[in-house]
Amino acid sequence: MSARLIGVGTGPGDPELLTLKAVRAILDADVIAHFLKRGRAGNARAIVATHWPETAIELPLPYPVTTEMHRHHHGYKSQIAGFFDESAHQIAEHLDAGRTVAVLSEGDPFFYGSYMHIHVRLADRYETEVIPGITSLSGCWSQAGVPLMQGDDIFTVLPGTLDVEALAQRLANTDSAVIMKVGRNLPKIRQALEAAGKMAGAIYVERGTMQNAVVMPLAERDDAPAPYFSQVLVPGWAGRP
Amino acid sequence: MSARLIGVGTGPGDPELLTLKAVRAILDADVIAHFLKRGRAGNARAIVATHWPETAIELPLPYPVTTEMHRHHHGYKSQIAGFFDESAHQIAEHLDAGRTVAVLSEGDPFFYGSYMHIHVRLADRYETEVIPGITSLSGCWSQAGVPLMQGDDIFTVLPGTLDVEALAQRLANTDSAVIMKVGRNLPKIRQALEAAGKMAGAIYVERGTMQNAVVMPLAERDDAPAPYFSQVLVPGWAGRP
Ligand SMILES: C[S@@+](CC[C@H](N)C(=O)[O-])C[C@H]1O[C@@H](n2cnc3c(N)ncnc32)[C@H](O)[C@@H]1O
Ligand SMILES: C[S@@+](CC[C@H](N)C(=O)[O-])C[C@H]1O[C@@H](n2cnc3c(N)ncnc32)[C@H](O)[C@@H]1O
Repeated sequence: MSARLIGVGTGPGDPELLTLKAVRAILDADVIAHFLKRGRAGNARAIVATHWPETAIELPLPYPVTTEMHRHHHGYKSQIAGFFDESAHQIAEHLDAGRTVAVLSEGDPFFYGSYMHIHVRLADRYETEVIPGITSLSGCWSQAGVPLMQGDDIFTVLPGTLDVEALAQRLANTDSAVIMKVGRNLPKIRQALEAAGKMAGAIYVERGTMQNAVVMPLAERDDAPAPYFSQVLVPGWAGRP
Repeated sequence: MSARLIGVGTGPGDPELLTLKAVRAILDADVIAHFLKRGRAGNARAIVATHWPETAIELPLPYPVTTEMHRHHHGYKSQIAGFFDESAHQIAEHLDAGRTVAVLSEGDPFFYGSYMHIHVRLADRYETEVIPGITSLSGCWSQAGVPLMQGDDIFTVLPGTLDVEALAQRLANTDSAVIMKVGRNLPKIRQALEAAGKMAGAIYVERGTMQNAVVMPLAERDDAPAPYFSQVLVPGWAGRP
C-alpha cells in the first residue's frame, strides 16, 4: 500500500515533450485523473495516450463552467471552488484505498495549472510529488525559434485579462514578456504593446508544439478571438552579446 | 547528408527530467556539443550520460571566463562574444560536413541559455530545431512543493544582479517572482524583499532536482555566497480559489 498523489506535467502538446519521469509515473499509476472541458476529449489524456496503462482506473474531472462564463461573474468563484473540493474528495477516496493517483496537468502543473488546486487541498494529508512539465512558454518560443531573454534581462508573464493601462505599464517595465489568456483580448493587447513601444517584435503563437501550430508576427494577426491555446511573445533581445 | 543544428534542453539536473524528444535527438546526433566551466566536468553532459551514443563526436565548449570575473569588467563582453563566435565556427564546420549537431543546454535552451548565442549566429544559414527543456523554475518550485501563481496573477523573473531599488520596485509590482543569479547578492535580495513586504513566504532553493538539493525558507538561510545553481522563489498565492 503506497498511497501517493502525483501531479504529472504533460508538456504543451507534443507527446514527445513528456519527460521520462512523467512516462514512468503514468505507467506506474493505479488511478489517472485528468481535467477536461465538458463534452470534449481531454487534451492532457490525448498527450499521454500511447503510454496509458490498460489496468489504470481513469478518473475524468470535467470543469463545471466553460471559458465563455466570465470569471468575474458572481457564481464563478464558488462554482470553481466547489468543483476542486469535489475533485479532491474523489481523489482522496482512491488515496485512502492505498492507490497511487497521477493527476495529469497540461504544461507544468505549478505554472498556472489546475493541479495546484488539488495539491493545496491534499498535500498536508498525503505523500505528494510534483513532476514538472515543459511550460507552454518554452514550447512556444522554441517553436517560434525566437529567444526572448538573456543575461540580466527581466522577464514577465502577463494575463491578457489585465486592463490596457496595467498591461502597458508592466510591458514598459520589463525587458521581455509573454502574454497568456489571449482570447478576446487581442485589441487590448495590441493597444498596450503600442503604448509600451513593443509592438514591432511581438509574435503570436497558437497551439504551440501541437500539429496545427501557428506562428506569425502579431501585426499580421487580425482581431478575431484567439483559441484557448494561444499566447503572445514579446522578445527583449534578438541580438548578440 | 542532413546537416542540422539542434538545441537540446536537458532540464535542471534530474536525468529523468529529460524529454523523450531530447533523448531521441541525443541518440541520433553525429556531434554532441556542450558548454562547461574550464577544469570541471560538464553538468549538461552528466545529465545525459546514460543516453550518450558511443559513436557520437564530443565537442566540449569550455567558457573562457569564470563566474568570478565581474560581468561589468571591460574585457568580459568581448571575451564572451569571441568565445561564442569561435564556438559557432567549430559547430559550423561539422554542419558543413553534413553532420547533425546537438548542442546541450541546461534547463530550457531559450530561457537565459548559452545555446541561444549559437542559434542567433547560425540559424540563418542552417536548418535548426530547438527542443525545449524543463526550466530551473519548474524544477525548483516542484521540488519545494509550493505553487507560486494562479489565475490572473502576474509573474516576474528577476536577476539578483539588479540594484536594491530596481529589485524592490519589480517585486512590489508583481504577484509572484523568482530571483535567479543569487551568488553574492543574498543581502541585497533580502533587503529588496523586506522593502516590498514579501520576505515572509520567500523560499531558497539550491541545486533544484539534483541529488543534493536544498530547500529552506529564505529567512533561515545565512548571507554566505550561494552556489551557481540556486534561486529564490517568491510565491504570490498559497491558498484556495
Ligand atoms: C491555465 S494556463 C495553463 C498553463 C500551463 N500549465 C503551462 O504550463 O503552460 C492556460 C494558458 O496557457 C497558454 N497555453 C497553454 N498551452 C499552450 C499552447 N500549446 N500554445 C499556446 N499557448 C498555450 C494559453 O495562453 C492559455 O491561456
Ligand atoms: C544562465 S541561467 C540558465 C537557466 C536555464 N537555461 C534554465 O532553463 O533554467 C543560470 C541561472 O539558473 C538558475 N538555475 C539553473 N539551474 C538551477 C537549479 N538546478 N537549481 C536552482 N537554480 C538553478 C540559477 O539561478 C542560475 O543563476
